[in-house]
Order: sequence, then C-alpha cells, then structure tokens
Amino acid sequence: MTDLFARHSALLNDAVQALKSRGFWSPFPETPSGKIYGETARADGEAGFAALLGQPFVLPGHPETAQVGAELSPFGPALGITYPAADPATLIAAAQAAAPAFAAAGPEARVGALIEALQRLNRISFLIGTATMHTTGQAFAMAFQAGGPHAQDRGLEAVAMAWDEMTRFAAAARWEKPQGKAAPLVLEKHWTLVPAGLSLVIGCNTFPTWNAYPGLFASLATGNPVIVKPHPAAILPLALTVRVLREVFAEAGLPADAVLLAADTAEAPVTQGLATDPAVRLIDFTGSSAFGDWLRRNATQARLFTEETGVNTVTIAASPDFAGMCDNLAFSLALYSGQMCSAPQTIFVPGSGIETDQGHKSFDAVAQGLAEAIDRLLADPARAAGVAGALANPATLDRLQAARTAGRVIRDSAALGTGRTASPLVLAVAAGEAAAEQECFGPVAFVVACGDAEEGISRAAALARDKGAITAALYDTDEARIGRAIRAFAGAGVNLSINLTGNIFVNQSAAFSDFHVTGANPAGNACLTDTAFVAPRFHRVMWRRQIAT
Amino acid sequence: MTDLFARHSALLNDAVQALKSRGFWSPFPETPSGKIYGETARADGEAGFAALLGQPFVLPGHPETAQVGAELSPFGPALGITYPAADPATLIAAAQAAAPAFAAAGPEARVGALIEALQRLNRISFLIGTATMHTTGQAFAMAFQAGGPHAQDRGLEAVAMAWDEMTRFAAAARWEKPQGKAAPLVLEKHWTLVPAGLSLVIGCNTFPTWNAYPGLFASLATGNPVIVKPHPAAILPLALTVRVLREVFAEAGLPADAVLLAADTAEAPVTQGLATDPAVRLIDFTGSSAFGDWLRRNATQARLFTEETGVNTVTIAASPDFAGMCDNLAFSLALYSGQMCSAPQTIFVPGSGIETDQGHKSFDAVAQGLAEAIDRLLADPARAAGVAGALANPATLDRLQAARTAGRVIRDSAALGTGRTASPLVLAVAAGEAAAEQECFGPVAFVVACGDAEEGISRAAALARDKGAITAALYDTDEARIGRAIRAFAGAGVNLSINLTGNIFVNQSAAFSDFHVTGANPAGNACLTDTAFVAPRFHRVMWRRQIAT
Repeated sequence: MTDLFARHSALLNDAVQALKSRGFWSPFPETPSGKIYGETARADGEAGFAALLGQPFVLPGHPETAQVGAELSPFGPALGITYPAADPATLIAAAQAAAPAFAAAGPEARVGALIEALQRLNRISFLIGTATMHTTGQAFAMAFQAGGPHAQDRGLEAVAMAWDEMTRFAAAARWEKPQGKAAPLVLEKHWTLVPAGLSLVIGCNTFPTWNAYPGLFASLATGNPVIVKPHPAAILPLALTVRVLREVFAEAGLPADAVLLAADTAEAPVTQGLATDPAVRLIDFTGSSAFGDWLRRNATQARLFTEETGVNTVTIAASPDFAGMCDNLAFSLALYSGQMCSAPQTIFVPGSGIETDQGHKSFDAVAQGLAEAIDRLLADPARAAGVAGALANPATLDRLQAARTAGRVIRDSAALGTGRTASPLVLAVAAGEAAAEQECFGPVAFVVACGDAEEGISRAAALARDKGAITAALYDTDEARIGRAIRAFAGAGVNLSINLTGNIFVNQSAAFSDFHVTGANPAGNACLTDTAFVAPRFHRVMWRRQIAT
Repeated sequence: MTDLFARHSALLNDAVQALKSRGFWSPFPETPSGKIYGETARADGEAGFAALLGQPFVLPGHPETAQVGAELSPFGPALGITYPAADPATLIAAAQAAAPAFAAAGPEARVGALIEALQRLNRISFLIGTATMHTTGQAFAMAFQAGGPHAQDRGLEAVAMAWDEMTRFAAAARWEKPQGKAAPLVLEKHWTLVPAGLSLVIGCNTFPTWNAYPGLFASLATGNPVIVKPHPAAILPLALTVRVLREVFAEAGLPADAVLLAADTAEAPVTQGLATDPAVRLIDFTGSSAFGDWLRRNATQARLFTEETGVNTVTIAASPDFAGMCDNLAFSLALYSGQMCSAPQTIFVPGSGIETDQGHKSFDAVAQGLAEAIDRLLADPARAAGVAGALANPATLDRLQAARTAGRVIRDSAALGTGRTASPLVLAVAAGEAAAEQECFGPVAFVVACGDAEEGISRAAALARDKGAITAALYDTDEARIGRAIRAFAGAGVNLSINLTGNIFVNQSAAFSDFHVTGANPAGNACLTDTAFVAPRFHRVMWRRQIAT
C-alpha cells in the first residue's frame, strides 16, 4: 500500500501545485498516438473492445443476483454485454461491509491506490475511448480524449484536492496553555479523518467517465465506498473503471467492494432506491434538473453534488475577426452535435447588426456567417463525422424536429455519416422566444435578435442566473463594455470566454485550470474541483488526553 | 480600507498559521483584568451597561419600522431595552442593496474591517460580558470569557479560515498549452470571488456571541450581507456586535447595511419568514433539532450550517485519580448549570463498580463521589454563584422537576444565590432508561448502570451516533480498552476527552485548536471552523481571454 503512495507521491505533489497555480498541466497525454501509448495500443484497444461484445462482463467477487445490460451503439450495433447486477440492499450491504477497512486504511494507502488505478486506466485509454465512442456517440478522437486522458486528469485533480484537504491541518498537536506562574495545562490532541458514509455516483450518457470521475475519486480518496450507477446506455466505460479500481484495491490490500457497479436498464432503474437509502450520505449527479429536483426533495439524508440543466449563451457585440469567430463558433456548435454540457446554444446578436473587421454585418449576415462556417466545417464527410459524432439518445432527434418550428430556419439540420446523426440546426428568433430561453439539448442554435449589445449581455446574464449556465461567450471590441460584461456574467455566476478564435473553444474545460461549473447558478451546485467539492466528504474527529506537567 | 488590512495582516497571518498547527493560540486575553483591559475597564463596562438599560438601542441608519425588545435578566431585572426592528422584506431589501458594494470591496477590505471590528469588540469585552451575563444567566467571569475574548477568538478563526480559502488558488493564471511545433494556445484567466447570497445567522439564548460569531464572520469575510437574528431573550450582546461592525464598515467605506439586526420577540417571531426568503442562501443555526428539522424541510433554498440537540456522555471504566475525576466532572456538570452544548449529561458506570487509585468503588460509591464533589464545589455560596450562574430559560426548571422521577435521586437540585438558579440534580438509572438517552438541557446528570466498561463505551458511542453528541469523556486505565474506545467514538463522530483532571474540562473547546462539533453525527452538520464551514459561502467565477502568440 504505502509503496504505491511512495511511487506516486511526486506526481501527487505536482498535481497539488498545479491545482493552486492553475496554469496548463496534464500528466495524461491527450493525443491518441502509438508513439505515446505504444504502437499496438490502438489495435489492442479495438481488439479488447471486440472481445467484450456479446459477453457477460467479468467483475470478480462483485455482488451479483442478475445480469443486466442493453447498450446500443449510437453508431449502430448492440453491444450485447451484460453486467453483474444486484438489488440496492445487496449493494449497500457490500459497501457497508467494506467501509471500516477502507476508512482505516488511511489517506496514503487510498491515494496511492487511486493514482495507480488512474495510471492503469490511462494505459487502456484506447479501450476506454472505444467503449466511450460506442456508448456516447462521440467520434473516436473525442471519445479517446474525453473518456480517457481528460477524465483521468479530472480524477487526479479530485484526488489531489482531497489529499490537500485531508492534510491541511495538523493530524496531532500539543496544546499548551500558560497558567501564569503555575505549570501550563497540556493536552495531546489527535484527529482522525472519518468518511461521511456511502457515496453514490450517478453517471450520465454523454460523458460517462469525465463527469463521474471527480465524485468517484474524491469520495474514494476520502474513504467513502462508492456505488457507481452508470446511465443504462453507457455502462461499459464505468464498468471498465470499476474493474481496474477493484483490481488495484485487491492488490493493495484494500477491500475491492469499496467500489461497486450498479448496472441497470431503463425499464428497471435502481437509482431512486439507492439514492434514498439512509446509509448513502453523498450523491454526485450529472443530469437533468428534473431529476435533480427529485433528489433534492427525496434524498434529504445525503449531501448532493449536482451538474444540471442550463442555457449556455454567446453574445456577439462586435468582432475583431469575423471569419475566425464564425469558424470558432461553428466548431463549438458542431462538436459532438451540441451534446456537451458546455456547448453554446443561444446566441444574442443586435437586431441592427454588428461592427467587424469586415465592416458592418447585419443580423442576418451574422446568422448566415455562422451557418456558412458550419457548412464549411462539415463539408467533408469524414471530417464531419469526426467532429459531430452521433446522437447519444434517440429523443434528441425528436427534440430537434420540434425545435424547427420555434423560429426562422437559417441552416437546416441533416444526417451525417454513420449512425444516429444530425448536423446543427440554426434558427433565428426574436428576443424573448421561449424556446431559446430553455435548454434544448442537442445540435440546435438559436440566434436571438436583441435591441443592442448591452441588452444581449443583460439577457445572457439573466438566463445564466435564472435558468443556469455552464459557459458564456462574448465577442466584442469595446473594452469598457467588455469590463461591464465581465461583471455582469460574474454576478450571474457563469464562466465567460472572450473573443475565442482558432483552436480553443468555449466548450473546453481543462482540469487543474478551469473550475468546471461554478456552483453559483442553477446549472449545478458542485464545482469540479474546488474545496467545497471535497471537504464535506469527511470529518475530523478528535481525541485528546491530558499530559501531566 | 486597505490600511485596515495592512494594519492587521500580521495578526491574520499568525491566525492562519495557528489554524494549521492547532496548538494553543489566542490573541484576545481571557482574563478580566484591569492590567490588560485598563484599570477602569470593569467600571466602564458596568456603567456602559447601566446606560443602555431602559432605553432604545441606537443603531444609526438601521432600517426601522418598530422598536421591540423584552429581555429579562435571569438574575432578576428587566433590561427595558428596545431595538430597531423591521419586517423581513425590509431587512432583505436593505441587505440586497448592500450586497453589490460589499462583494465588490473584495477580501482584503472586508477582512481588514472585520479584524478591526474584533479588536474593538475586544476592547468592550467588559460591556459585552455584562450584557452576556444578564441575557444568558452566565456568571460574570464566564460571560466575560465566553461572550468576549473566546467569542472573538472564534470570530477571528472564521475570518482566518475564510481568508485562507479565498486565497487558496491563484486569482489569475496564464494557461499555455503546447501545440507541438505550432505556437502554443494561450489564455489569460481571472477568477472573481462571488458571494453565495444573503446570510442569516440565528443566535441562541445561552451563547449569543460565541455561537453566532463563526457564521457571522465567515459570511461577512466572504462577502455575504448578514442578517443577525438573535434569540429574543439575548439580543443585547449581538446588538452591540452589529453596532461595532456597522461603525467599522461605515468608516472603511463599506455598506453598513451589510450587517443588520433582526430583533424580535417570542410572541412575534420573524425567523421563519427570513429563513425561507429566496434571497437567503446561507443559514447558520444554533438550537434544537426540532427547529433544525423545520429548517431542513422549509429553507431548502439555503445551505444550512447547524448545531443542534445531542446527548453528551461520560464513560467511567476505571480511574487513576478518583478524587481528581470527581472534582473535574463536578465542575463540568455545575458550570453554567449544564447549559453548555458541550456539558456532560449521561454517565455510564459499570453496575459492578470500578477500580480506582482508592481501590474498588461500587456503582453507588462512584455516583456518591460525584455528588459529594458537587457539594464541595458549591459549598461556598459566592463560589457556587460564580460557577453555576443562573438558568437562561424558565422552562429549564420545569424540565428539571420532570426529570426527578426518572431515576433514584443521588443528589437533589437546589436554588443557589440570586436569580433563577438550580444546582445539579444527579440521578441513578438503569441502562436503557429513556430519559438518560435524550437531551435534558440544564443541570441534570444521569448515572447509568451498565453491564461493564465495554458496554458503557458501546452505549455511549451509539448515543452519539444515533442521537448526536458534541462531547464524550472517558476515564480508564486500560490502554487497550482506551484504544478501542478511541476507535468507537471516532466511528460515532464525536470528540473524546480522556482522563481529564484539574483545570481542563470536557466542556471546553478552544478556537484554533479544537474543532467544535464534528459534523459527523446528528448534533450538527457544521464544524467550527473547518473548510466545509467557509468554502460553500462563495464561488469562483472565471473570465478567460485569448492571448495572441
């Protein structure tokens, strides 16, 4: 155990420093290259995935009263994989049985094992990437990055934050209170870190690992057994994760049942039963505000960490680089077909148009510029497939169809390549149009005509404050107005990206630098990964004893 | 503003260091001595208190639609002071109006002003102490300490913790991502600290300042306007506090309405209206679990920090110093008539007795030893009054009367000196007696006959886990059993004091060293003052902008 901690302590220290300085830092290479991951890595990943198809997924020693699983790749085939499943009571009992030894093992043993597991997960990033691709609909390059190294970065970030928090205060102290001329009062004091209880991590369909790893690794680092409840359509990436964790735990002398898989199907969901169990004290949830509200009302025994529904906006007040702006936004809109929680949706443009490096552009010219940039981006079918991927959920296509009537179609959606796909629909609407002011998850953009730039900023900030938002973007050339916008979006509790062009996009959120979700608006109460995300996962309990003087 | 921060920055740095090392540290002298506080300080404090009696309390510029106040000293007289009062909507509006400027002022301006206010509060500790005495029933020496310097320590602790948290991560960063042979991607990133919203601090009758200062100062430091809602029987200590804070804020160019008083009466309470206002995002509450439950059910828009009901235990397994143990416990039971949240109540003693330095002591001999030690402690009337003080609430006398029938009376309660007083009632009961397993707030101790020491430890730990506890004490000589007890009480989430004798008591909780309340059992979810107590009071919101390379 301790040797794993020693092996990884330099990396841990670098991670803690990176957390604090918040520059670029990533220990897990994001390029799916044979030079980095080994010349056979890609083929090994594909073969590993193929070998899993149509088989029961093996999780040695895992509680099992049934086998479930009905994953369908958004690119076509059924995966045919089944997973060991058990009723909530069985899973809770197994987690509770693992709890004392897992708590007693202490931070060093747990943190060492978790970093070891992240490194092993990194080595199978091609397998995880392929599994992510065929459960989420992400194109392979994105599935590799978001499902593999970027998720691993977020996992390590959570481990580092938890470690920094667990070691923030002295573990023991001599308290010596002067008593004038008499001998001082002296106490020895010792603090034990006590985990909060059982932890439930509820995964989502679109980013099964990236969104689950922070809560998973933060809870495990602080000593709480975790029940991982994947979305029924995206079990495999988390099942692979649970398997690696259980292997490392067993090797390190930690209880394997400190991490459990709660696989289920859409027809027989187990989430509500798990979430309301009195033993479950921590819940990490990524999903709709509707289910977030259900958890708030019903899982009152637990501390909830959520990422929920929101409306991300772009405000185009002016542009110093019109073509660069359109290309940049086109990519943000098309990337994974708008299925990122950070993807822009509602774009405010003054009805009278804007000033740009290409001169004045009318409202329609701006909307048309965006549409044309999307067309250019997706003109090559192979590139289009590589950017847009497929739609995770069939309901997204229905939502897209329904949205078409909400405004004037500037660019229509169309199928793209293999699988369930749709290119971005771009609609022009009037300010106040209801469809543009609620989340329309998927490849839909509303270009909203507002009175002027200030009104756009004000409407965008109000949407973030009232409906929630994970990102906001602004294009402008007026520095005074940019300053006012910075204050307005900060007041609305949303992260703002200004004048992005080229290869950096509003959707992107880098571990160790970007705090993902502020916790300051309805799009979520949890921030990946800040102090408030880890501190409530454990308590300090003291014993003190008098020392005679 | 900044000069206040500069003036106090050395003290702030010392406080942050003390937080981390957790040895003895206190900048505010606890001795009510003229040599420290000035030769006329005591007389000035008494005169200052006398001048307030029978008058409207002046809070310049404070919202006011009525004057309320009906405080009665537990030592006799009515205070006759009325306070400016306003309906919840008026207070909320005033706090909201103050919020933008208070947030914009930034951490340095707020922290500087808050430490200045704590130092000014320290200088009027005799006045605060006298006000605390005549609203809580604490004897003067305790009222001075707990109402003055110890509360100020807790206030500074919260400020230091908030400061450490607000400055934990870089406020700005250059994020530079390599792009192989191409120019790197570069973003400048900036984080604004955004307060959570309005804060409501609900004070208690027994420790109006000590229990309110942590939430009050933590919320103010992190930029949240605070509405201070004192217990209607103990308004004055917090009204004095609010006045000092408003004075310092006004001098420092901060909005005075960032701190407001919500005075009310028992007949026309305002707490529920304030607590459920959508603008209130943070609530600090000290009081019964019954009202804690009400808040959990109804104030769902706010983050709750609570200290609630509990059953503090002593387990006497053996004693290396029987007389010292009895004297020590007698003081803990008699101090402020058992009205400390940390006072012991339920004492487990093996029915077959224990081994001590005085040989074997039967169960009855142990109970009798405690009773005799209480008698010795309270034999001198002046000393008795100085230890026990008076009962804050008339209901405590009724509760005491009702408790008499729950067991065999080992030591009866009796009046003591001036005012509403009662010496400790000591009852012997059988294990499992319901009265001993719930909080009986006031001077009541149950000596419970358990099977053996292990059963006592097990019962005491179970009570902490199930009913909540802020303290537990153990007397034992068996090191192996002590080790097991340490693990049992840690598992129950309660701080444990072992073999205390002399002038250090289980009730005592020192700022900067003892975390008060673990948050790990039903006696409260908030810990004074750990990271989780301050981190959720603000959020980090970013703006980022591309830098051309």
